Amino acid sequence: MSLFLGLDGGGTGCRAAVADASGRLLGSATGGPSNIASDPAGARANILAVAAEALGSHGGLSDLHAVLGVAGANVASCAAQMIAELPFADTRIVSDAVIAVKGALQAGDGVVAAIGTGSVFAVQRAGAIRQIGGSGLVLGDEASGAWLGRALCARALRARDGFEPETPLLSDLIARLGGTDGVIRFSLSARPVDFADFAPLLVTSSDPATLALMREAAGEVEAYINLLQQGQNLPVTFLGGLGPTYAGLLDGRWPIRPALGSGLDGALWMARQGVAA
Amino acid sequence: MSLFLGLDGGGTGCRAAVADASGRLLGSATGGPSNIASDPAGARANILAVAAEALGSHGGLSDLHAVLGVAGANVASCAAQMIAELPFADTRIVSDAVIAVKGALQAGDGVVAAIGTGSVFAVQRAGAIRQIGGSGLVLGDEASGAWLGRALCARALRARDGFEPETPLLSDLIARLGGTDGVIRFSLSARPVDFADFAPLLVTSSDPATLALMREAAGEVEAYINLLQQGQNLPVTFLGGLGPTYAGLLDGRWPIRPALGSGLDGALWMARQGVAA
Repeated sequence: MSLFLGLDGGGTGCRAAVADASGRLLGSATGGPSNIASDPAGARANILAVAAEALGSHGGLSDLHAVLGVAGANVASCAAQMIAELPFADTRIVSDAVIAVKGALQAGDGVVAAIGTGSVFAVQRAGAIRQIGGSGLVLGDEASGAWLGRALCARALRARDGFEPETPLLSDLIARLGGTDGVIRFSLSARPVDFADFAPLLVTSSDPATLALMREAAGEVEAYINLLQQGQNLPVTFLGGLGPTYAGLLDGRWPIRPALGSGLDGALWMARQGVAA
Repeated sequence: MSLFLGLDGGGTGCRAAVADASGRLLGSATGGPSNIASDPAGARANILAVAAEALGSHGGLSDLHAVLGVAGANVASCAAQMIAELPFADTRIVSDAVIAVKGALQAGDGVVAAIGTGSVFAVQRAGAIRQIGGSGLVLGDEASGAWLGRALCARALRARDGFEPETPLLSDLIARLGGTDGVIRFSLSARPVDFADFAPLLVTSSDPATLALMREAAGEVEAYINLLQQGQNLPVTFLGGLGPTYAGLLDGRWPIRPALGSGLDGALWMARQGVAA
């Protein structure tokens, strides 16, 4: 009997689903973190626990053809070790970006722009995925929530220096963080998620500074997507908390399509397609 | 008897000089860190030690009219507390930027561009200093050594993604840091000084990517200086490890003048001018 396991896991938790060959969902479960690079033993225990719970009484773990989209998948040695230790019929370990693209597009050609706290872009052509961006906030993650929040703080300081008008929103920001020294102090300890806390303000504000910043960010997103299009007009799917915002700002540039499914759906779909074999 | 103490101090050490009313140098000394905000007690001990050593047998500490250019000077409460605790005839605490400007220009009108690991810009008109930039690498420090190194890493990743040609220097950089994942890992833990380690390479290379980056950086410096000029054509003094580089790249834009003296000279000059009173 062939059963199929899809798993979507990262540093905070994981989700798993089991289906049969016809695609009928037999069970699902959620569990603990599954970063196979930073905590291999913990990841293995959590992966086994959610797999067993999702499987229930439908079979044994050795019946499962598994696709795991997990954090740390890019560390080849960790992935090989994990595959050797897991009891499934076969196991393929891929990044969370891969299952997100497969979930969004299944086999179809298209571009995926995933923009939340960070940002990453991918294109799929004939089933092959190419991913760009996603370099983290220090060097990249253009147009992400963290990038927007940091850019807003930088813009406030440049406005105070006299490079551009200090709009009411920029003045409020400086005051709220305790003056320009406070803005700098905040920046020195802020994690990406701390900068990303400003994203909802940016997205909803009609202050001239935020409108200019959102235009600039949309331009970055457009540049990534155009680079991946290579002159084509593939459908574009926007994912992540800021996905709908950029879909609205860039409406009309390319066909925009909703995602067919989630990253977990993508992992399960890959498992059923035998991509994991 | 009136004697004058100038002190230039920061997180790694401090230097002091004592002069008489005619400007004759009576002694100088170097000592430990003097960040009055992060370690007030240690700073006070080090300031007293170098002051006593520079003074020698020429008088008592209470004869000294002191100007201290020290890290942490922007924290008003720390500065007030330090002034209350020091035994000098009078004490003025200013930032390292202020003594750098006074050392470079004394009383003259002019612009100072100080560009090393970080960057900060200032203008002096009729003795009054206005300072801009210097926001740190996360939000600013445009054209600094750290900014250049970070921009080089980001440019390498964008070239690998396909946004621009991957020049030999960018390929070498990626290989040296262990691939694109290595570049990202480096960026996540790199301090400004770590990024600034790439500055000498950037300054001396004739690779197209570094030439483009230096042009961009020179444009940032030009924008800061033009903002401070306010349509005037004041002389510009370049300070810091990258000062000569930008002086060369921007030659002919404004009159470029060498600094009259160091930050320590500036502190001593301020003390002798009675600015400290």
